[in-house]
Amino acid sequence: MAETIGFIGLGLMGRPMAKNLLKAGYSLVVHNRSQGPVQDLVAAGAKAASSPADVARQAGVIITMLPDGPDVQLVLAGPNGVFEGLRQGSVLIDMSTISPVIAKELAAEAARRGASMLDAPVSGGEIGAINATLSIMVGGDAATLERVRPILAAMGKNIVHIGESGAGQLCKACNQLVIGGSLAAVSEAFALARKAGVDPAKVREALLGGFAASRVLEVHGERMLQNNWKPGFRAKLYHKDYKIVMNAAGAYDVPMPVSAVVAQLVSALVAEGRGDDDYSALATILWHLAGVD
Amino acid sequence: MAETIGFIGLGLMGRPMAKNLLKAGYSLVVHNRSQGPVQDLVAAGAKAASSPADVARQAGVIITMLPDGPDVQLVLAGPNGVFEGLRQGSVLIDMSTISPVIAKELAAEAARRGASMLDAPVSGGEIGAINATLSIMVGGDAATLERVRPILAAMGKNIVHIGESGAGQLCKACNQLVIGGSLAAVSEAFALARKAGVDPAKVREALLGGFAASRVLEVHGERMLQNNWKPGFRAKLYHKDYKIVMNAAGAYDVPMPVSAVVAQLVSALVAEGRGDDDYSALATILWHLAGVD
Repeated sequence: MAETIGFIGLGLMGRPMAKNLLKAGYSLVVHNRSQGPVQDLVAAGAKAASSPADVARQAGVIITMLPDGPDVQLVLAGPNGVFEGLRQGSVLIDMSTISPVIAKELAAEAARRGASMLDAPVSGGEIGAINATLSIMVGGDAATLERVRPILAAMGKNIVHIGESGAGQLCKACNQLVIGGSLAAVSEAFALARKAGVDPAKVREALLGGFAASRVLEVHGERMLQNNWKPGFRAKLYHKDYKIVMNAAGAYDVPMPVSAVVAQLVSALVAEGRGDDDYSALATILWHLAGVD
Repeated sequence: MAETIGFIGLGLMGRPMAKNLLKAGYSLVVHNRSQGPVQDLVAAGAKAASSPADVARQAGVIITMLPDGPDVQLVLAGPNGVFEGLRQGSVLIDMSTISPVIAKELAAEAARRGASMLDAPVSGGEIGAINATLSIMVGGDAATLERVRPILAAMGKNIVHIGESGAGQLCKACNQLVIGGSLAAVSEAFALARKAGVDPAKVREALLGGFAASRVLEVHGERMLQNNWKPGFRAKLYHKDYKIVMNAAGAYDVPMPVSAVVAQLVSALVAEGRGDDDYSALATILWHLAGVD
């Protein structure tokens, strides 16, 4: 019989990821705050658990896919949480994007309880979750990763072991801030072009042929040219991620002057009520400043 | 007999570009402030002119490749400058990286004198100049570009008509600032990784598989991992380019908060006496701030 996997957090990302595990033949025990997604998964062959603790009692591998660090802390360490039902030798895989500092603390607590925990945040968005093409950045014990690699491979393609506990989350923070620096710079370039009467589409075309080339310029640059802010990846989640980035910068005493400015711009985007637009709408904040929106 | 081309400015970039024109079979009349490069070109088959005006009297197409805007202004509009010897119907091609505002002014002056002027800055560095693989961003009249396209094709590969006069320089400014945003963000990400005890090589590897992928992460990220600051493209020239970027931002009233910060970091790099290092050494400024250099 196939291994039983627990899955907690059946949101925009978690639901298709859990379905891909079912498709790969795993037995699934699921839990979610709202019951709609649970019923959906049960209809697809999963079993519903009454609490995170109940999930942990029934499964040797427990995956969490939740909005933020405090949610993961609550689901693991809170009342009726995973830790209450945790079996010796179980493996926890947190695939949420949370603070690397919290990830390290939770992994240490899991270890004290005789379990292993990996932080395994993803990139690739809802489409990657549906198509099982997520990139997965893993922190934690390498042997534990090898044990659960087939499970991760049912949800993603590019699975990289980054380092010790927290390293996966640290890497995800780096991913988000590198994207942010590019997004902001491309947005400023397009603002300058427009205000100077130059076609930003021509600028994009020329820049893609040289050192300025990036996936952001290619994909989000195209979105910007079309004023297409349909998500994709919602600005409010990116805002949350930038808080993680800047909290990590604070926790490790790393001055990040460029990311600090980008964080403010992302904050402005959400403050303008654009939290449900795609995060590339960051461009509109800079265009508005320049009077070319 | 092949068309005679004038070439003024035989520096690190101009010298190999002029040689590629000779190789392509053009007759060349050259001028340069210092005589070493002139003798080199004469030995390769070019003719030396006594002044920029003298170049203009002998050639119907005149290329300038000079350090900055004031140099181009002096060589064109100064005493014994190109404008003094300019023939009706001649084409000026300024391939220097200068302010788009100055480029527009000089093109208007050339037009008043019965000539056409293109701004055609390049990217691709010394290696691109030697191998004739430069990207060329062209502003000015499209028909004039078509007339001289074979000449440009002897020096570069990716020749894009961006728009009217100044648009080529505006595009080059965009190119530099888009690279700058990426460079700074990648540098901050590596600083965060190092300080948190995570291998930046692993971060780079993971990020290259997703939306954070860029030529900067790929090429300059590799340089950063190896602490290889051998130019490449010198920081002092990048510093000059960022002045052009920020001047253009000022001229067109475009607030660029992210580029403004990057400009300060580039300035810090030069202030530290690193002007002759590769511009990717920008990373060291951020690493020093974080205490991980």
